[in-house]
Amino acid sequence: VDRIEMVGDELDAIGAALERLLAVGFDLICVTGGLGPTHDDLTMEAVARVTGRPLRLSEEALAMVQAQSIAVYRRPDVQASVQEKQATLPEGARVLPPPGTAPGCALVHQGTVIVVLPGPPWELARMWEEALPEEPLAGLLARAAAPHERVLRLWAVPESQLIAELDGFDPGAWDRLRVGICARAAELEVTVRAQPGDAWAAEALEERIAERLPDALFSRDGRTIDDVVAGGLVAAGQTVAVAESCTGGLLGARLTERAGSSAYVRGGVIAYANDVKRELLDVPERILVVDGAVSAECAQAMARGAQRALRADWGVSITGVAGPGGGTPEKPVGLVYIGVAGPGDSLGHTRHTRGGDRATIRERAVAGALHLLRRSLAAGTAVYGPR
Amino acid sequence: VDRIEMVGDELDAIGAALERLLAVGFDLICVTGGLGPTHDDLTMEAVARVTGRPLRLSEEALAMVQAQSIAVYRRPDVQASVQEKQATLPEGARVLPPPGTAPGCALVHQGTVIVVLPGPPWELARMWEEALPEEPLAGLLARAAAPHERVLRLWAVPESQLIAELDGFDPGAWDRLRVGICARAAELEVTVRAQPGDAWAAEALEERIAERLPDALFSRDGRTIDDVVAGGLVAAGQTVAVAESCTGGLLGARLTERAGSSAYVRGGVIAYANDVKRELLDVPERILVVDGAVSAECAQAMARGAQRALRADWGVSITGVAGPGGGTPEKPVGLVYIGVAGPGDSLGHTRHTRGGDRATIRERAVAGALHLLRRSLAAGTAVYGPR
Repeated sequence: VDRIEMVGDELDAIGAALERLLAVGFDLICVTGGLGPTHDDLTMEAVARVTGRPLRLSEEALAMVQAQSIAVYRRPDVQASVQEKQATLPEGARVLPPPGTAPGCALVHQGTVIVVLPGPPWELARMWEEALPEEPLAGLLARAAAPHERVLRLWAVPESQLIAELDGFDPGAWDRLRVGICARAAELEVTVRAQPGDAWAAEALEERIAERLPDALFSRDGRTIDDVVAGGLVAAGQTVAVAESCTGGLLGARLTERAGSSAYVRGGVIAYANDVKRELLDVPERILVVDGAVSAECAQAMARGAQRALRADWGVSITGVAGPGGGTPEKPVGLVYIGVAGPGDSLGHTRHTRGGDRATIRERAVAGALHLLRRSLAAGTAVYGPR
Repeated sequence: VDRIEMVGDELDAIGAALERLLAVGFDLICVTGGLGPTHDDLTMEAVARVTGRPLRLSEEALAMVQAQSIAVYRRPDVQASVQEKQATLPEGARVLPPPGTAPGCALVHQGTVIVVLPGPPWELARMWEEALPEEPLAGLLARAAAPHERVLRLWAVPESQLIAELDGFDPGAWDRLRVGICARAAELEVTVRAQPGDAWAAEALEERIAERLPDALFSRDGRTIDDVVAGGLVAAGQTVAVAESCTGGLLGARLTERAGSSAYVRGGVIAYANDVKRELLDVPERILVVDGAVSAECAQAMARGAQRALRADWGVSITGVAGPGGGTPEKPVGLVYIGVAGPGDSLGHTRHTRGGDRATIRERAVAGALHLLRRSLAAGTAVYGPR
């Protein structure tokens, strides 16, 4: 992807953007959104204008829209004018069948393939997958050579440390690579691209990172932490339950994002209020009073409570101060404890402190919980932090 | 916002994008990201090159970076070269203090204000807020006139029905407005903009929508469904607990996104496995066997179970088939039941069927639960669907 442009729902703005991109001579331009039935859905009109094709009602597209109105939305009563608007496309364009009610289209203009896709993410993704094996995309992809690309993921390493570890790496190898580094929720994602003949340089860089940061490097094949945790649970034939305070369900939601997660997720308890921690998770009153709800003791008791109450192999917990209020000098905003309870009555925990707003602190806490579970799964027993 | 461009971490690409935008003569260009310490963080260099200013180490910025390394990240050991890179800015630019470790900057070039902000969302947001009252942004904003803008939100109305209800609306008023319609998770967001003298036209449109779709229009002042639900719970002095199956914690996470949500969120049970529904939520075995886990009966029992187990005023539940597998002819993928238990032993539920992928179905289920709770809060008792 060389460039992404986003413009408003105006004919002139969409048209000007298309002209700018066509002038570059890209092989492919994907246009997304603005295929709906309302007056501000102007994408097809803009594409028609810029490519010099008249807009025409496509009978093929109209039949698809009518069928979808009934099949997907059970609405046989939609006005004909609405359906006709969504079936009106640049003349001669290939119609792409609608997963929702909006058909897309594909055409070639001045040597550039233009693919027009709907805005709702799932409709876009499905139409794109179905369009890939068809012309004009199939021919374009057949002419393209895939570069050598490898994604490495590291946990709990600051960018500055990664730089230090790469100091002195073979400059002859480095110059042949395009290396992108992206920091996100305390992970570093290192994307290494090389021309097919320079794969050796990419491998040398990967080996350097693996050698210097062996504990931090948790994925060398592009797998995300979600992939690694799910794979670990499936491979072990084990289940997990969560106990969440400040994240309020975010960890459970993340674990169940994947299809098939019912094989290893039992569920959990969102213990936002302290008496819920006591009553549903059996956290001892003494811990809540003496150590407090934001403590290693409470995190471990919550993890154990979830493991037992939901009869899971693993319990994972999060308790912390997500802010912006509620911080104290001893327990500042950003302080988070993560607990894990595993086989053989094993217990572990880790502790994070990190700046950021409420959403960032919660997101990082979820990442921390997934990584503590990953490390515990690898060890076959609950482990401690920090890495 | 007239245009958003996203380009890769390459000096030429960033420079060319800046030149394209400067050529338009915008009042303001915001540049975000690429302020980190690694070799692919090139934004300051690109801004310096395009504006013809040399890059200079700023002692003011360096002191800020050094202080932040210790205050935020407790890392006094960061190499000097890393800190110096992040403190090297286009000469003469105003330094914007770093919420993380990356300072931003602001300058004026050929009459355009350029503000350079860090990529991590919370750092960006905080720096932007702090930059607004300072020059050069303060002067720019003082010269700008705010347009009349109103955001209306509707629930469970298809775009095609909204169009039908607007049929015959005064064309003299319509032509004075810029109306944007955006569909998201079964809500419609209608943004109405008018020049200050044309506020009457915006009001006429708002009245038309309020008159024709009174049950669907749930917000006339820009408040989101999250705002309305939180406000309703606070105003009533009541609490809520959740019981989630297919959403796995997403509703709880959404309700606790807001600071201060501990005043009205008790927590909940993520009952992903059926025996968890029975054991932690007291869903009768008979319901699970006869009606099934995806049924109105189960949804209501789950809501009641959460309300009781967590001693909350309201219980809200979600159970459904999020897919992609697990669907049957009677209970297809996308079928979701939402239950609500309220004061005075009241019970209610609603039922959705909608196409889409797993993420879309889960997101829409959460929206449906928030709206059923909103309507129940307004009625003071649990209510039924569909709207």
